[in-house]
Amino acid sequence: MSTDGDALTKYCRATAELARAAAALLSQLPRTVKDEWLRHSARELRDGCGRILQANDRDLQEAKDEGLPAASLDRLALNPARVEAIAQALESVAELADPVGERIESIVRPNGLRIEKIRVPLGVVFFVYESRPNVTADAAAICVKSGNAVILRCGKEAAHSSRAIVDILHASAASTGIPAHAVQLVDTPDRQAVRVFLRLNNLIDLAIPRGGEGLIRAVAEEARMPVIKHFTGNCHLYVDRMADLSMAVELAVNSKCQRMGVCNACESLLVHRDIASRFIPEAARELQARGIEIRADAQSLRLFAGGQPASEQDYYQEFLGPIVSLKMVATIDEAIEHINRYGSHHTDGIVTSDELAANRFADGVDSAAVMINASTRFHDGGEFGLGAEIGISTDKFHARGPCGLRELTSYKYVCRGQGQIRS
Amino acid sequence: MSTDGDALTKYCRATAELARAAAALLSQLPRTVKDEWLRHSARELRDGCGRILQANDRDLQEAKDEGLPAASLDRLALNPARVEAIAQALESVAELADPVGERIESIVRPNGLRIEKIRVPLGVVFFVYESRPNVTADAAAICVKSGNAVILRCGKEAAHSSRAIVDILHASAASTGIPAHAVQLVDTPDRQAVRVFLRLNNLIDLAIPRGGEGLIRAVAEEARMPVIKHFTGNCHLYVDRMADLSMAVELAVNSKCQRMGVCNACESLLVHRDIASRFIPEAARELQARGIEIRADAQSLRLFAGGQPASEQDYYQEFLGPIVSLKMVATIDEAIEHINRYGSHHTDGIVTSDELAANRFADGVDSAAVMINASTRFHDGGEFGLGAEIGISTDKFHARGPCGLRELTSYKYVCRGQGQIRS
Repeated sequence: MSTDGDALTKYCRATAELARAAAALLSQLPRTVKDEWLRHSARELRDGCGRILQANDRDLQEAKDEGLPAASLDRLALNPARVEAIAQALESVAELADPVGERIESIVRPNGLRIEKIRVPLGVVFFVYESRPNVTADAAAICVKSGNAVILRCGKEAAHSSRAIVDILHASAASTGIPAHAVQLVDTPDRQAVRVFLRLNNLIDLAIPRGGEGLIRAVAEEARMPVIKHFTGNCHLYVDRMADLSMAVELAVNSKCQRMGVCNACESLLVHRDIASRFIPEAARELQARGIEIRADAQSLRLFAGGQPASEQDYYQEFLGPIVSLKMVATIDEAIEHINRYGSHHTDGIVTSDELAANRFADGVDSAAVMINASTRFHDGGEFGLGAEIGISTDKFHARGPCGLRELTSYKYVCRGQGQIRS
Repeated sequence: MSTDGDALTKYCRATAELARAAAALLSQLPRTVKDEWLRHSARELRDGCGRILQANDRDLQEAKDEGLPAASLDRLALNPARVEAIAQALESVAELADPVGERIESIVRPNGLRIEKIRVPLGVVFFVYESRPNVTADAAAICVKSGNAVILRCGKEAAHSSRAIVDILHASAASTGIPAHAVQLVDTPDRQAVRVFLRLNNLIDLAIPRGGEGLIRAVAEEARMPVIKHFTGNCHLYVDRMADLSMAVELAVNSKCQRMGVCNACESLLVHRDIASRFIPEAARELQARGIEIRADAQSLRLFAGGQPASEQDYYQEFLGPIVSLKMVATIDEAIEHINRYGSHHTDGIVTSDELAANRFADGVDSAAVMINASTRFHDGGEFGLGAEIGISTDKFHARGPCGLRELTSYKYVCRGQGQIRS
């Protein structure tokens, strides 16, 4: 390895070791200290709004010089209202219950041994994300509140903004008793740093990528520690033969159109053939009126004008925009099989007034969340009442669905005896 | 890749795809069907004892020809009593509650959305293990009861015995309605098969290695799916200054000597200096009387005869035999730091009558289980009342400590509405 490589490895290892030491202290801190840091940081962020916006201006200027598209510039841009929203998000994390120390289970054994299963932090989280500066504060708040130290690696676009935010969080940590290295922002612009961190599985307990599919796949591929992630949200809404027609149309429109660039937006409609001739023309009219292109199978295309034929690939596609795929099915089982085959195990819904069909669908669809007579857009930590979330997991191991404070914890067994020995 | 490699890859992929299809069916089966299979299999194993012992004789003969050591031959050997124990283990799994379908949480949101968090199987488990034929039946029982399909890869020493057992489980599946491919035994002797399976992360949800540290490290290194594992059990017992002296000696002897080759046996004693001159001579006498060699620091060596000086490496060591390391510490914090540094995060205990010290130790020690005034030997699924266990995890992600039926499950969110849309 080159001398540069050695220096980078040393820098990453030192960062992770400082995080590890901070995590040991953090895990013992009472809720009051963590909440005081969150509230104090919120105040300091408001007070430091001018500095944050100056730093953000530098990021925006560099991004314009590099020709970033307008949508990326908008994601990057801060203003007083957005800084206020960041501050409020920290205050809302302070309101959430502290998961650390929660007694999950308690067992007394016949020999008198009292076994308690106690929630503990995971340790050190490596968080890699793209361009939105508010994620810097959000991720720091969620990790620290759940007792974890965090190493933040933001996209270079947001480097100055994130640095300004983290400087404020650091100053606030110093005055509220949070370890200095509980939150660290990776300083080097070297793109290899991510790879080095992802190999430090003896020091880092969890990696969380947030951003485009490319970033997430790269992190999942390289990481030697567990990863919480979701690749895509190819979400379905199945309109059953026993669906309430107007509810079905309203749910299709809301699931698809309420916000199109998000992971829980509907990308594919499946319609039972018995209701197709009533549902499809009306749904097509409402969707097309909102500028949605419909890619459908031949049977469905006969029932409305202006559709496009769907390719096999279209059914695998997360469009994240004004396109939806549509397919007629002969049975609920065909719908379930289609979803399990083409979907991404994220969010899939059924519209039906038949409770047996609803249960069959809920049992058969292998997804993090199943919606019965509700918009797919409800699959979200906030909508579930978890408070803050760090992402939605489409894996089944450890955490599935919205990941809030609890999903960033593990547990330990504490066993209290009076000298019990095993015979 | 060679033609052989292609054939192997095809075989492994086909096996995993059959497991995946079986898992989809299994996940929907009610408890009664799974329990009937377990009880029917137990009866058939008893009836088939002769065939199993014949197969086992072939394994033993081949193992002798290859010069396997006596301890390995003993682990491999079956007899009518051991077959009866295998049958009884299946019956005891049938007695355990079915984790699948358990409602873990239930939330009603202000908008009327009813959210239920429901326990579901993980899917397909790849189980790799060495030489004990009873593990074949145990692993099959635990995986199927928790709704998972399992691919079993046993060491070649136990190939005939495992085949005889799996043939009986298959016949029993056919007559009780369990999918034929819920349990599959890998047939090829090709050692590359394990590597191929460990790369099929789209088809296999979890890998579990059971055996020596070499096997476990190799699986953890190669696997592209999550792994439940523990590498080593370097367990400590810390004798606090406020310890009850006779309890401390009894716990030290039981933790070290009750069974020495297991992961929750004590490998290291830490003693507070205030109690050292009273505890160490007595503990040393009791341990040495049981043939235990004591490797100690210089301070401790002055307090008893016949000890050996401990090297730094000794404090990292899982001896799995009649050796224990011993160290005097000045404070409880020194004990905690030593354990977190040299230990393996498995099981660590404290002997003390001081509740504050006990809590400090329980909070500070980063281990799957912390024992307060109890033998380290209690860290075990059976002793915790979990019933069957598939291993003890020293990881923090997903499962920590004893892994029973629940630890082989995930969950999904099922949300029931009346047409709710997001605004």
